[in-house]
Amino acid sequence: MRVRYAETDQMGIVHHANYLVWFESGRSDLCRQRGFSYKEMEDESDSLLVVAESYVRYKSPAFYDDLITVRTKVGEIRSRSIRFTYQVVRKSDGALLAEGETNHIVTNSQKKVRSFPELYRQRLMADSSKPKSI
Amino acid sequence: MRVRYAETDQMGIVHHANYLVWFESGRSDLCRQRGFSYKEMEDESDSLLVVAESYVRYKSPAFYDDLITVRTKVGEIRSRSIRFTYQVVRKSDGALLAEGETNHIVTNSQKKVRSFPELYRQRLMADSSKPKSI
Amino acid sequence: MRVRYAETDQMGIVHHANYLVWFESGRSDLCRQRGFSYKEMEDESDSLLVVAESYVRYKSPAFYDDLITVRTKVGEIRSRSIRFTYQVVRKSDGALLAEGETNHIVTNSQKKVRSFPELYRQRLMADSSKPKSI
Amino acid sequence: MRVRYAETDQMGIVHHANYLVWFESGRSDLCRQRGFSYKEMEDESDSLLVVAESYVRYKSPAFYDDLITVRTKVGEIRSRSIRFTYQVVRKSDGALLAEGETNHIVTNSQKKVRSFPELYRQRLMADSSKPKSI
Repeated sequence: MRVRYAETDQMGIVHHANYLVWFESGRSDLCRQRGFSYKEMEDESDSLLVVAESYVRYKSPAFYDDLITVRTKVGEIRSRSIRFTYQVVRKSDGALLAEGETNHIVTNSQKKVRSFPELYRQRLMADSSKPKSI
Repeated sequence: MRVRYAETDQMGIVHHANYLVWFESGRSDLCRQRGFSYKEMEDESDSLLVVAESYVRYKSPAFYDDLITVRTKVGEIRSRSIRFTYQVVRKSDGALLAEGETNHIVTNSQKKVRSFPELYRQRLMADSSKPKSI
Repeated sequence: MRVRYAETDQMGIVHHANYLVWFESGRSDLCRQRGFSYKEMEDESDSLLVVAESYVRYKSPAFYDDLITVRTKVGEIRSRSIRFTYQVVRKSDGALLAEGETNHIVTNSQKKVRSFPELYRQRLMADSSKPKSI
Repeated sequence: MRVRYAETDQMGIVHHANYLVWFESGRSDLCRQRGFSYKEMEDESDSLLVVAESYVRYKSPAFYDDLITVRTKVGEIRSRSIRFTYQVVRKSDGALLAEGETNHIVTNSQKKVRSFPELYRQRLMADSSKPKSI
């Protein structure tokens, strides 16, 4: 992904809230690499991964026009929750810009907690030691 | 409204896309001043005002921490569409920062075009010569 | 602050990244209530509070048009860093929507770490037990 | 570019302000395809392209996870201004989602209007009949 002008702030660096949006792109892409789209899971299994916690550690600023990579990994899957971990890396110099994690609760579209749909749980667990990059 | 740090970009001024978000707050507030919430109209009359066109003319930059006012006016209501006009003004010096307009089509929640719900049409037309500020 | 339409996502609730933007508004306002603007501190003492860590715990969703309050408190001021804590509360029912914290490092405009400017340190420490709301 | 979850709103479609951010990515990419980065132009010729006007016509909604392409074209270059035109197209079905234009004034970093730097003017004019896509 390339850093957008709109993502910078008057410090001349990327505004810190955008990393959560990038993490989300990382999650979408991880799903895609496991053979399904997050959208499909939402639609077909009536499951939403509602964000319950987010943590970001900002190591080094990202700048406009940087090419960045988000390395996303499934941290842990429990019966009704999932944890993802992330690393944001700048392509040009390999610098680690940020790392973090998000915890999610599985709900249906009526916002009731439900168990993780088995099909998607298996897909996400497969090969979970290998980080996936976008 | 007070300009947020996240709304600035590396030019040190507010990023131009945010004016459309401010216009939207202006619309919400206009509805509220006419005695209803936009949310209520969405829910109770199954009507969405889908944006069909937007135009912004940027006159002078807005800066972090500026207090700004959006003056919103109903430009025109037709059977299936509505046009709003806006002026964004800085409170401290009265400078006109931007002006613009948005055109909307009325649809139901299935995205089918429908006619403007009569109750809300009347409320929006009432007194439409007087701009409302937030 | 009133929740903006643009801050919602297709789950029908506020997107989780916006809480970091709201926290930032909370910081700005805390400064203002201590007698200075964050902008003034940036300009006059050549000090930026660069975000080093952020943590958010999402308790209950916020919806479009909700009126929300951010309660911001200075957690800890050290020689080169500061920690803020936050609670986001919905006005209508007093529900606690989220809580979190951010840790900041003090740098100059060249991004070199520097010590906290004494004047602003004292202002921020004053009365730091009392949360401030916007 | 892939549509991000954060770019949707509670209507279930992409919020209209994001198209201006996509247009901006289109401009950046057009520059890159003409052999320079917009960042480089800002830094090396002390020239900013400040947005003076934006216009968007929304034809069909974009959805989460859509792959979209922005076709950007130089509309007109004058001595102190430039106009870009855009088309946003969904890759899967070729649907035209939006079209629009932005007008920009050339300023230096002190926000004074200046003439278009000759080097970059020539690069942008080259081959301007052919739209470039990202």
